[in-house]
Amino acid sequence: MSVTVVGSVALDTVETPWGRNEEGLGGAATYFALAAANYTRVHLVGVVGGDFPARHVELFESKGIDIEGMERIPGKTFRWTGRYHEDVNIRDTLETQLNVFEQFHPKLPEGARQAKYLFLGNIHPALQREVLEQAEAQFVGLDTMDLWIHTSLDELEAVLKRVDAIIINDSEVHDLTGAHNLVKGAQAIRELGPRIVVVKKGEHGCLMFEDGQTFFAPALPLAEVVDPTGAGDSFAGGFMGHIARQDATDSAILRQAAVHGSVLASFTCEAFGPNRLAEIDAEAIAERCQAFRELVTF
Amino acid sequence: MSVTVVGSVALDTVETPWGRNEEGLGGAATYFALAAANYTRVHLVGVVGGDFPARHVELFESKGIDIEGMERIPGKTFRWTGRYHEDVNIRDTLETQLNVFEQFHPKLPEGARQAKYLFLGNIHPALQREVLEQAEAQFVGLDTMDLWIHTSLDELEAVLKRVDAIIINDSEVHDLTGAHNLVKGAQAIRELGPRIVVVKKGEHGCLMFEDGQTFFAPALPLAEVVDPTGAGDSFAGGFMGHIARQDATDSAILRQAAVHGSVLASFTCEAFGPNRLAEIDAEAIAERCQAFRELVTF
Repeated sequence: MSVTVVGSVALDTVETPWGRNEEGLGGAATYFALAAANYTRVHLVGVVGGDFPARHVELFESKGIDIEGMERIPGKTFRWTGRYHEDVNIRDTLETQLNVFEQFHPKLPEGARQAKYLFLGNIHPALQREVLEQAEAQFVGLDTMDLWIHTSLDELEAVLKRVDAIIINDSEVHDLTGAHNLVKGAQAIRELGPRIVVVKKGEHGCLMFEDGQTFFAPALPLAEVVDPTGAGDSFAGGFMGHIARQDATDSAILRQAAVHGSVLASFTCEAFGPNRLAEIDAEAIAERCQAFRELVTF
Repeated sequence: MSVTVVGSVALDTVETPWGRNEEGLGGAATYFALAAANYTRVHLVGVVGGDFPARHVELFESKGIDIEGMERIPGKTFRWTGRYHEDVNIRDTLETQLNVFEQFHPKLPEGARQAKYLFLGNIHPALQREVLEQAEAQFVGLDTMDLWIHTSLDELEAVLKRVDAIIINDSEVHDLTGAHNLVKGAQAIRELGPRIVVVKKGEHGCLMFEDGQTFFAPALPLAEVVDPTGAGDSFAGGFMGHIARQDATDSAILRQAAVHGSVLASFTCEAFGPNRLAEIDAEAIAERCQAFRELVTF
């Protein structure tokens, strides 16, 4: 079973107190695809400019990721520059250049359209709707952000009616529902459509609410967080990837999926950009799943 | 096996967006004792004024708590007034009246002195040292706070050399070690003395570091947090209470203890003051332990 992801492919410049990564591979769809490719065939739908380095294309291809839907058009690739503080939970966005992403309208090639699983990355809800109208997916996950919640709530709510799972940050639960309490906020989101609500809390792990059940997966306590950029997107990739590989969405699979998401996110934090994520294999994932099990076993 | 706790017994006035509790029973030693009394005999060492209501004394006695070491002296009981915001993680201290607590020097009666387990509540480290000099405990836990870290670090470090477990908030790990990273901070604290470091993260659960192992226990996701005052002290009471009842401190017992701590903390949050904590029984604790197990099982 394959999974389609639609979202940004970017060149990120990241500064931390410990180093700087200049114009490295980034973007939500990138992290998602590299994470999910450990589990299943991934169709990446996005857009890059003429300046997008060939080595990144080769990386996607080496992972078996289908990039037929990654348009390459004249102009510059989406660029983002951010700086992390010594407390890596604090991040400043220094610059965002949408570039070719500004006129992006996702077009799904045959393979992407037919995938049974679909993830709508954090793009304008009107674009997410365009994707839904092309796709034949039977299970749809979605990410969003404060910007769309505050500027395009009606369109977002229309899309939410049609998705199975939402994977968002804890602060966005408050933005979307007004609730300070995550249990109440998740319940309010479920009433908007998604039967599965996964709330990412960064270093504090994630909570998943579905059909009367609550599941908690911690984040792996890491002594060194080199660069958390893309951790949330890697989570989504591990989550959706596991579901697609198992081709099931019962509670047991969803719980495992949340752990796999946390596993992939933990790898991403260990190096700049997707450098660590790009080098892991099934054995590394299995070992780390075991570490998560030991972390919570009593 | 019994456990001795030394710390504050107070009258708390708590305001939340949902209600107000005027001069209710409070204080770290109170919450600890009521939590730990579910597991073992507790010796409470503290001080109250002549105004301390008889019904609170009766509550302690009804739980089998030994209050021989709770001095009653002329004057007013320690009072604290605080206000929680709609986001209950934000708390303002409106007033602190030390009153009889200002001149407190703990005196341990025979029973308290002979207890095998001892918990040094959040009092000045010089007083914690005075307790250590009287006690015959074989296993010592300790709480502290930013105030002592910033004003009495030498005395605190001297005490830390002599304790087995420290149970503190995540922000205090940073205050004590300068580390933003909890893994590194906990390691630095272990080098100061305690072999067991339990980091409380409020609604985000707790991390326990000991002898090369890391354990994570979530907080129970509650739809209604009525009053989180005393949750951390209840955690310590459940943690030390379980250890004392089992009379063991191996990893398996410590992991269970951290879950019992989280269980007791969750009850405390459900009502003002120790109202819910005071009414639970072994069956309620066992049921909630099971809920914690289901929360993390995959």
